[in-house]
Amino acid sequence: MPLLPEVNGHNGVKVKTSHPNPSIQVTADHQVKMVEAPVEEPGHGQVLLHIKATGICGSDIHFWKTGKIGTLVFEGDCIIGHEAAGIVLKVGEGVEGLQVGDRVAVEPGVPCEKCFLCREGRYNLCEDVQFAGVYPYHGTLQRYKVHPAKWLYKLPDTVSYAEAALLEPLSVVLHGIRTAGLSLGRGALICGAGPIGLIALACARASGAHPIVITDLEPKRLAFAKEFSPGCLTYQVNRSLDAEGNAKEIRKLFGPEGDEYSAPPAVLECTGVENSVVTATFAVRRGGVVCVIGVGKSIMNNLPFMHISLAEIDLRFINRYRDTWPSGIACLSGGILDLKKLVTHTFPLEKAIDALHVCSDLSQGSIKIQIVDDVEASLLS
Amino acid sequence: MPLLPEVNGHNGVKVKTSHPNPSIQVTADHQVKMVEAPVEEPGHGQVLLHIKATGICGSDIHFWKTGKIGTLVFEGDCIIGHEAAGIVLKVGEGVEGLQVGDRVAVEPGVPCEKCFLCREGRYNLCEDVQFAGVYPYHGTLQRYKVHPAKWLYKLPDTVSYAEAALLEPLSVVLHGIRTAGLSLGRGALICGAGPIGLIALACARASGAHPIVITDLEPKRLAFAKEFSPGCLTYQVNRSLDAEGNAKEIRKLFGPEGDEYSAPPAVLECTGVENSVVTATFAVRRGGVVCVIGVGKSIMNNLPFMHISLAEIDLRFINRYRDTWPSGIACLSGGILDLKKLVTHTFPLEKAIDALHVCSDLSQGSIKIQIVDDVEASLLS
Amino acid sequence: MPLLPEVNGHNGVKVKTSHPNPSIQVTADHQVKMVEAPVEEPGHGQVLLHIKATGICGSDIHFWKTGKIGTLVFEGDCIIGHEAAGIVLKVGEGVEGLQVGDRVAVEPGVPCEKCFLCREGRYNLCEDVQFAGVYPYHGTLQRYKVHPAKWLYKLPDTVSYAEAALLEPLSVVLHGIRTAGLSLGRGALICGAGPIGLIALACARASGAHPIVITDLEPKRLAFAKEFSPGCLTYQVNRSLDAEGNAKEIRKLFGPEGDEYSAPPAVLECTGVENSVVTATFAVRRGGVVCVIGVGKSIMNNLPFMHISLAEIDLRFINRYRDTWPSGIACLSGGILDLKKLVTHTFPLEKAIDALHVCSDLSQGSIKIQIVDDVEASLLS
Amino acid sequence: MPLLPEVNGHNGVKVKTSHPNPSIQVTADHQVKMVEAPVEEPGHGQVLLHIKATGICGSDIHFWKTGKIGTLVFEGDCIIGHEAAGIVLKVGEGVEGLQVGDRVAVEPGVPCEKCFLCREGRYNLCEDVQFAGVYPYHGTLQRYKVHPAKWLYKLPDTVSYAEAALLEPLSVVLHGIRTAGLSLGRGALICGAGPIGLIALACARASGAHPIVITDLEPKRLAFAKEFSPGCLTYQVNRSLDAEGNAKEIRKLFGPEGDEYSAPPAVLECTGVENSVVTATFAVRRGGVVCVIGVGKSIMNNLPFMHISLAEIDLRFINRYRDTWPSGIACLSGGILDLKKLVTHTFPLEKAIDALHVCSDLSQGSIKIQIVDDVEASLLS
Repeated sequence: MPLLPEVNGHNGVKVKTSHPNPSIQVTADHQVKMVEAPVEEPGHGQVLLHIKATGICGSDIHFWKTGKIGTLVFEGDCIIGHEAAGIVLKVGEGVEGLQVGDRVAVEPGVPCEKCFLCREGRYNLCEDVQFAGVYPYHGTLQRYKVHPAKWLYKLPDTVSYAEAALLEPLSVVLHGIRTAGLSLGRGALICGAGPIGLIALACARASGAHPIVITDLEPKRLAFAKEFSPGCLTYQVNRSLDAEGNAKEIRKLFGPEGDEYSAPPAVLECTGVENSVVTATFAVRRGGVVCVIGVGKSIMNNLPFMHISLAEIDLRFINRYRDTWPSGIACLSGGILDLKKLVTHTFPLEKAIDALHVCSDLSQGSIKIQIVDDVEASLLS
Repeated sequence: MPLLPEVNGHNGVKVKTSHPNPSIQVTADHQVKMVEAPVEEPGHGQVLLHIKATGICGSDIHFWKTGKIGTLVFEGDCIIGHEAAGIVLKVGEGVEGLQVGDRVAVEPGVPCEKCFLCREGRYNLCEDVQFAGVYPYHGTLQRYKVHPAKWLYKLPDTVSYAEAALLEPLSVVLHGIRTAGLSLGRGALICGAGPIGLIALACARASGAHPIVITDLEPKRLAFAKEFSPGCLTYQVNRSLDAEGNAKEIRKLFGPEGDEYSAPPAVLECTGVENSVVTATFAVRRGGVVCVIGVGKSIMNNLPFMHISLAEIDLRFINRYRDTWPSGIACLSGGILDLKKLVTHTFPLEKAIDALHVCSDLSQGSIKIQIVDDVEASLLS
Repeated sequence: MPLLPEVNGHNGVKVKTSHPNPSIQVTADHQVKMVEAPVEEPGHGQVLLHIKATGICGSDIHFWKTGKIGTLVFEGDCIIGHEAAGIVLKVGEGVEGLQVGDRVAVEPGVPCEKCFLCREGRYNLCEDVQFAGVYPYHGTLQRYKVHPAKWLYKLPDTVSYAEAALLEPLSVVLHGIRTAGLSLGRGALICGAGPIGLIALACARASGAHPIVITDLEPKRLAFAKEFSPGCLTYQVNRSLDAEGNAKEIRKLFGPEGDEYSAPPAVLECTGVENSVVTATFAVRRGGVVCVIGVGKSIMNNLPFMHISLAEIDLRFINRYRDTWPSGIACLSGGILDLKKLVTHTFPLEKAIDALHVCSDLSQGSIKIQIVDDVEASLLS
Repeated sequence: MPLLPEVNGHNGVKVKTSHPNPSIQVTADHQVKMVEAPVEEPGHGQVLLHIKATGICGSDIHFWKTGKIGTLVFEGDCIIGHEAAGIVLKVGEGVEGLQVGDRVAVEPGVPCEKCFLCREGRYNLCEDVQFAGVYPYHGTLQRYKVHPAKWLYKLPDTVSYAEAALLEPLSVVLHGIRTAGLSLGRGALICGAGPIGLIALACARASGAHPIVITDLEPKRLAFAKEFSPGCLTYQVNRSLDAEGNAKEIRKLFGPEGDEYSAPPAVLECTGVENSVVTATFAVRRGGVVCVIGVGKSIMNNLPFMHISLAEIDLRFINRYRDTWPSGIACLSGGILDLKKLVTHTFPLEKAIDALHVCSDLSQGSIKIQIVDDVEASLLS
């Protein structure tokens, strides 16, 4: 690998090392490039990680292509990546419970721990969260990263780095499932068969929800869903029907009468597409919950207000996750969830740019792409 | 009173009586007229009431002027009125717990008691509810009405008929307050200073919410609110600001910094107006609840989807109420709530048409108009 | 079968039939005998069933041996049995949604539908519930039984009568699981490996709880549990340790440190034995829930009050179930739960007395015993 | 004041000052004495306070008289006091949002902020909480105390130090009220008319609960309660009745029939006395919640297990509080609660030993005793 220019924006003392630290950076002018990043010393309560696997998220592609999501704007260069797992290389002062050589999953958001939202345990809503991979906080698409020990979770030997890197999108879904209140023997509708929708499908099945219907516009994705979770039913969204019409068809999959009794009390909306959210409100049972996991446009129109009122629907929205890694790890290590099949492509760190291109090319049909780094880097000296 | 034509649509055996039963009927062609209605025999589980007081609701006016609300359509003549209290005149077979002479409040919706929603206790969502005053079920704006004993609630002597007729709108608010989760020492925002908003204001105060801000476009209504509940703060919606701008101003009333910490965790949206709902989503604290009580247009646009997602706001909607009369009666009889000042106008039953005209004329500034019937009618024979 | 004396206590019009209706009756003097019972006409809203399968419950044995459970006393002869499924033979007036030939599961408790608890949907707490199989309401251990259509649930073809008869104990567990709040990837402790404990084990697994530990005094039962749900961990209660000591050992199965972090946030206590409840309070995580499903002695002593306070434990108790049959049927028909292996013994109706003796003889090691009736009885005429 | 020996156990750098810092210390051998304590420098994130008011709690007396509560043991000298308010004298590094001269209330428990319980927001359950006034963490019964800024809450000018020192016991009640789920127009039973019971009474009233009954053994305390909150009903526990008998009498105060319908759905048990807890379980409505706030003996006997199961009662226990100061301050500053009358005695810091003696002497009939320190100490130099 050629010598790369040093990235801006790293703070803190740098580790003196001859080891290269290739990193994937998104720039303010919507470029993506591989650069050599400095290696930092872990400060108080921090550890230095060798990142072994990072999944690529749709938001990474979105930041690359548009430079922003809502109020989050890439005003300068920033290393992306936030679905990660790695190994502890060095331990800073005051760190308890983690040692060199520990394998860990990374919770990428580091909240302020001072505000009332942090105090109340709703740290995902902290206004001062430092989220790895969102400007100006460098992410995990680099070899070496410093992270606070508090936001790392030890992995059992039975959970691979690749699986552990799925804990971040799994966390989104776990938070959504808790918010939606899925439960044993009750129906669930999942809108969207992308990575989040597919993980939601697996989680709904693992929670004992039944029946489960998953929708998408693309037959290929539905075929993947059916193979991934054979017990589910699939529904291809019919573009010639309106939202209410699609909802009627979806309801028939829950019960031939398509009535309230068989309608699902919970919907996990994983697309963020307006039409899909509206469909969800017509498909859900009276008194049910539509949990909107997907994030879409800034403004939503065409919400069937009167219907939602009369049906007493609860429209819940979520922002990331909180308190989900321990449950996620238990699911993976206990065989409750098997998400490995979702990783359709794996690239080495050196080929990460290629990976981003494959991910952004919908025709390639990737579900989850991961960057792995199998280099032996445990000794930095 | 002149002899009136008999109304259509009454079923069941009629009581033979020489007593007149004046009733207020809305027709399919948007007329309102006073007619003589037949008096029915109470069937199994039913009682015959002399309705002593009925409040006029905005929906009554809406049915009169437009013939429908959402899917509820006046396809024929129907007696309106659903905010009522009265005295038991006659008791049908199988009635337990009620006797002639008992003073009662009327819960106007009679659910099917067969469907799963009824079984689960969410009877307000029953698809086959027979709601008094909505076509084809005759309402309480008549002298004599038959109603199932199960949906009547005995009144303590300390609660007047006029107060008891307020239990129906109070029920809407109680259901909203339970849904929104108001609590002691936490802020609450109330959007709209109409009858529902004012009752919400009283209930929020009685629940110990603090601070409480109530909004409206009309200074007169806000002045009424301030006099009705002196501890509240008022905010006149600024038409020259957008929803987000108004929300910022509202937040400053909760705390000079206008920050998340002082922002209200719960909003009771009592207008159903799109702009007000959007304002609510910008004013509420991150992670908070906006309970939409007001019903407005069929479709809502301009919902700030991205903001709602990032702020993890819970948008809850309600349809009427369930299990609220006992609490409402306790509030009135125990001096927890004093709603009497909301009744700005009272008309005798014979002048009910005049009352409807006053109610529909916004320039008259009525809050709650009630129709009372002080005629001695306890002996029908 | 010889002609049997007619049982007392049946009310209602009897069907004239030459078909025998053998029934199992418990008497006030603690006898169990098979008698010929009259066949009743289904009244308004009722259907006549041919009961095809009934499971025997520990409470049946308890009523037989002691004549009572708490305030429920057998003051006269009464047919027992309440875990049942059957086929509709005849439909009374006013019945909607059920026809002759429909296969149904029986919810045995028929609440009053008048009281506030019924109205609020907490019908399991109705003080006037008429519970089939508890004096003076005849149960399902007979061939022909009349039951209200509202409390019957249609079975899909894929659910056998034998499975459907398990819906009643499954309902107990579903209510317990909802009360305890089990969830995906979080640990659960189940105390007791009897029929309820084993169903709880299956439901906990189907809900995605992990890790799951089940306890019992008997190694045989634990071996059965392990074979029934291979993913679980088992713990044999050590009689030489006190409750706190056993709790410490149990905690180590959740994580080698035996600390709060790995401790289970939910316990399903299925024995009702004082020592087991106390163990549960020491095993559960701080802030967790102990849901006591088992019913034991009238009075419990030795509750570690100070510990429970400091650990902020929520001790929840349940009485039967509500709103559980639909979910239970979905679980069985959808392959979410497979409970068939729990039925260790099956007897024909004519041998029901033998079945009771086997059930009451602990040395026989039965888990769930069912009485089935394969006689062709669909034509009563 | 004579020169006092320096107390042991203070860590951190001491402020050089000629100002005396009198402090009240409980010793391992059950003595209470006034000593001169060193004044510490505020460290990172800390401030130095001049404590202006501290309330005496029953636990202070308990520690003095017995040296322990449960597992909390005074193994050495320790300054007591944890119900406090003061003024900021000096601000440590890294403190945001607090300045010299700010008036603040003290949340005495400082959790570890590392464990999963802290992360989840249930910091009151943190196993490593450093609670001011419980050995080995010095409390607020001294003039100068260092405390982390994060656990201090700015006071509005309208809230006096004396009122602010009531925020700690108020917090216990707010946590209990949230746990018990008190709500508008629903009955509440409060067991015990000591300081916590009386604050619970005020909070229940401020939450709109109705009717409210408060019980005690002492007529004097009930008379105080009645004067303090005239809308409540009082019940003197009858020693000649058992718990069930007392519960029956209590129920009659909620409604003459003493039935489930009028029975209170929530009980705040503020005594921790076994007999009172048992009474609560008989008085509460079926399906209701008994929230045990009071802490009593280590072991509780005589719990009516079968009754609690059949009535499906939820027995919840609490440990202190979380997220309560903001609400408490809003209640006091907004006039939602007026607790000033509860302070029956006030002593200057120099007379604190006398105050403890008065508090421990039940014949003196104190409700809440406070120690205030009006010395001008804002300049330490």
